[in-house]
Amino acid sequence: MKIALAQINPIIGDFIGNGNKIRAFALRAKNLSCDLVIFPELSVCGYPPRDLLERKSFIRACQKATQSLVDDILGIGVILGFVDQLAEAPGKPIANGAMLFEDGKILEVVHKRLLPTYDVFDESRYFSPGAKAEPFAYKGHNIGLTICEDAWNDLDLFPVQAYDWDPVQTLAEKKADLLINIAASPFHAGKRAIRGNIMAHLAKKYHLPCVYVNQVGGNDHLLFDGTSTAHTPGGTLAALAGEFEEDLVTFDTSTGQGDIHPVCENEVESLARALVVGVGDYVRKCGFSKVVVGLSGGIDSALTLAAAAKALGPENTLGVFMPSEYTSQQNFTDTKELADNLGCGYEIVPIMPIFEAFLTSLSSFCDKENFGVTEQNIQARARGTILMAYSNKTGAMVLSTGNKSEVAVGYCTLYGDMSGGLSVISDLPKDMVYAVSRYFNREREIIPESILTKAPSAELRPDQKDQDDLPPYEILDPILHAYIEDLKDPEEIVDMGYDRDVVEDIVRRVVRNEYKRRQAAPGLKLTSKAFGEGRRYPVAQKFKDQDGS
Amino acid sequence: MKIALAQINPIIGDFIGNGNKIRAFALRAKNLSCDLVIFPELSVCGYPPRDLLERKSFIRACQKATQSLVDDILGIGVILGFVDQLAEAPGKPIANGAMLFEDGKILEVVHKRLLPTYDVFDESRYFSPGAKAEPFAYKGHNIGLTICEDAWNDLDLFPVQAYDWDPVQTLAEKKADLLINIAASPFHAGKRAIRGNIMAHLAKKYHLPCVYVNQVGGNDHLLFDGTSTAHTPGGTLAALAGEFEEDLVTFDTSTGQGDIHPVCENEVESLARALVVGVGDYVRKCGFSKVVVGLSGGIDSALTLAAAAKALGPENTLGVFMPSEYTSQQNFTDTKELADNLGCGYEIVPIMPIFEAFLTSLSSFCDKENFGVTEQNIQARARGTILMAYSNKTGAMVLSTGNKSEVAVGYCTLYGDMSGGLSVISDLPKDMVYAVSRYFNREREIIPESILTKAPSAELRPDQKDQDDLPPYEILDPILHAYIEDLKDPEEIVDMGYDRDVVEDIVRRVVRNEYKRRQAAPGLKLTSKAFGEGRRYPVAQKFKDQDGS
Repeated sequence: MKIALAQINPIIGDFIGNGNKIRAFALRAKNLSCDLVIFPELSVCGYPPRDLLERKSFIRACQKATQSLVDDILGIGVILGFVDQLAEAPGKPIANGAMLFEDGKILEVVHKRLLPTYDVFDESRYFSPGAKAEPFAYKGHNIGLTICEDAWNDLDLFPVQAYDWDPVQTLAEKKADLLINIAASPFHAGKRAIRGNIMAHLAKKYHLPCVYVNQVGGNDHLLFDGTSTAHTPGGTLAALAGEFEEDLVTFDTSTGQGDIHPVCENEVESLARALVVGVGDYVRKCGFSKVVVGLSGGIDSALTLAAAAKALGPENTLGVFMPSEYTSQQNFTDTKELADNLGCGYEIVPIMPIFEAFLTSLSSFCDKENFGVTEQNIQARARGTILMAYSNKTGAMVLSTGNKSEVAVGYCTLYGDMSGGLSVISDLPKDMVYAVSRYFNREREIIPESILTKAPSAELRPDQKDQDDLPPYEILDPILHAYIEDLKDPEEIVDMGYDRDVVEDIVRRVVRNEYKRRQAAPGLKLTSKAFGEGRRYPVAQKFKDQDGS
Repeated sequence: MKIALAQINPIIGDFIGNGNKIRAFALRAKNLSCDLVIFPELSVCGYPPRDLLERKSFIRACQKATQSLVDDILGIGVILGFVDQLAEAPGKPIANGAMLFEDGKILEVVHKRLLPTYDVFDESRYFSPGAKAEPFAYKGHNIGLTICEDAWNDLDLFPVQAYDWDPVQTLAEKKADLLINIAASPFHAGKRAIRGNIMAHLAKKYHLPCVYVNQVGGNDHLLFDGTSTAHTPGGTLAALAGEFEEDLVTFDTSTGQGDIHPVCENEVESLARALVVGVGDYVRKCGFSKVVVGLSGGIDSALTLAAAAKALGPENTLGVFMPSEYTSQQNFTDTKELADNLGCGYEIVPIMPIFEAFLTSLSSFCDKENFGVTEQNIQARARGTILMAYSNKTGAMVLSTGNKSEVAVGYCTLYGDMSGGLSVISDLPKDMVYAVSRYFNREREIIPESILTKAPSAELRPDQKDQDDLPPYEILDPILHAYIEDLKDPEEIVDMGYDRDVVEDIVRRVVRNEYKRRQAAPGLKLTSKAFGEGRRYPVAQKFKDQDGS
């Protein structure tokens, strides 16, 4: 059987657009003489639809769109992710479904059995789990069809079992001879290798061909890298779809041959592509075409601008430089050069008159000569207000520019530099900001070398440097990684060899600044644990996470 | 058996404070010669701890605190909500537990069986469900112990079953002769009556005394009203603890007698108390003691200030009036009178010099003579920046003042009037803002009558009135209620008798402004469906909810 892996980029709730995309990919598959075309999890409505699943009108629209695909796509078998409405209580009224249809007839329907409910996933909130795992016959095969998480409970790979059964094992025991998994598996750095291992392992373990079709593109904070695969029963990679792009590859179960398309060569390249796709999809799927970025002369705003220009075109990307008297002369040069290298729009709006108007109005307690956090924040908020004025006037979305290290410890101003519709690099630690920036410069200098080499500074007071206020990034970043991504206790981090006072200070800052992150723009998820939907901490609480007190 | 219902207000993660509170209430119960004292769900750590439950140090601290209570509280039986660590996979590594201990010995442990995973609840994210429901013998009783949701699946009351079994029914069938439910059941208007009905129904249905102990106080956006109850086997209310206050009431199973403490007389009084407790707890539990509120002269900021002054004392409450040239003279008088009535601090900071500095700097596209959204938003953001400067300088938390009707349709400025650490009335529709405001005036005029009677206006352009930009609140509010709380389709709302164009315009605004709400401060939950954690919609999406397109 010749199978097409149709790796599409749906838009949440765009039933007409998604339907047309599914029709077009099915036609491509037919023209390639495929017997079967496979689409990702929930591809009719896009993943994740979240609480739209609680609206009757959404479910109705989803059913209507699904039925029209069943009616329209003829002459090829289609496996498709959809929302299935369940006839009876108890439990949630819908299931995360996959159907096989052909020539107007629905031949099989399965429901996702393992419903991820952790990190960014809330599937138990919406769906009843499927209880059965039965292979079904189709064109000489006995297909074992699973949905995403269903394939993530193999005892060899996950010794700590999150669920009480393994649907893949059940399907293999029931003599499936072809495993198909449809997925919407979010990207993070390193995830592709994890998924590849799972699929290769399952193929080898059960000696079955294993086809995996993933969604691609960005939806809100989640990115999907695609990289759909087919593995032969020997565990050899036989088909591979592109990374962060819509794609269609074929795999023939009789010959074990398939298309191998190029993917990113390393993690830094993946992250660079992730940023570009993430910005482009978020902005466009929100109905915008243009963006505006506040440029400081630093690396964070430079990378944000570069990613945006690549995603949306330099003609749709405006950099606004808002100097104060604490701004170094170098930053005038660097920001202009950056915008010129990219071909972006560039404007200068000095903030001193506005800052001084604030200080005058607040002269009962503000003092330009005697600088504190108050005066620094006013500058950042004046800049935020200017950027939002550009947004209001031109219909461009403001992109905020804070990196993960800053956002973690609250080294950023709420309603100031945190303003914007999307926080592009808020899940990228400072060291990776440099690495990805250098990747952008791989062919020619886009981000001026001076930006890559100067000491980071917020320039909110005279001669300020990040390192006056924060531990050096080479210490801060690994401590944050251990605390946030690896969920290590402060004590364990001290045991890794870090100074106790530094660890406790950093943890205290992370905890104390939860309130800022609660009001942050959505940020593209790039690591295994991003701030936002996947990390839900109370704000009003007293647990300091300092040795259990 | 004489039972004490110990309705406490824990702070999330404050193991020492919560432990001391539990000890003190247990002592009070002992002094009243009670045989058993009962504390709410997860009272050792406070509810909801959210992702703190994923931190090993938090679980360890919780275990340590629990053990020290077991060791310390002697001479009385104690039922207590705690986090139980489970020995084995598969599944989540902890359970939402309740234990009975006495004189240093843990006598019984049960695990919550029904884990709410909808609206504000994420319990399947953290906990493995309990599978058993067995009564246990204690002091002549056979106790059926359940935790919150466990009692919310009775087929008579919930014909659409959310879960596949009813633990209360199982316990009754197994000859329990006393039902005890420990809970952390969030408040919304009307919820007390629902809970009362459930408990009375269960008591009558199974002819058993039924004791219910709820948490009280605010934690982040969630409020807990307490109003713990005991019902006799006949379904008569025999004990009732106070509303929105810590309390201890007793109930004697042999006599059926108990303490009945007063609770609020009506919904408006409950809402007023909710606001006061919500502001007070959030501010204090975040480690603040003072607040600052931007006063416009309108009803929303007036009610917010009044609630804050009541909660924190007028000496800790500052109102800042920030007039522009579009501010009416009446608002100078009204805001001053409001602050004087309350005894709060009051300051005036005119924004025109700041506004003009912005317009001058942005003169390439801003125009004071030709007003649009851009120029209006600049004013709102200048005010937000001023309030945040007060916050930075004085350590007071800014309270934002938008009501639910405004926040729903986006009639508010992100980083402007939406700035603040807590959004006090963002779940209160405009009609209820008036009703609760009049309640605050029940004994003497606190909110000046002029504020209660003037036409609402944002005063961001000459002669602006809300009704120029929005449908009248008496039309807007019921449509929003139908769409947001009752999840009605636009078509169903039209069928209720509303104009189609108006309904579609309002729904479009609600959908389009999801991005603003995503960055809003936590807002106190007062209705059955609040914005925030309990309502999770994608931002980047194309579903317009207009007849399935």
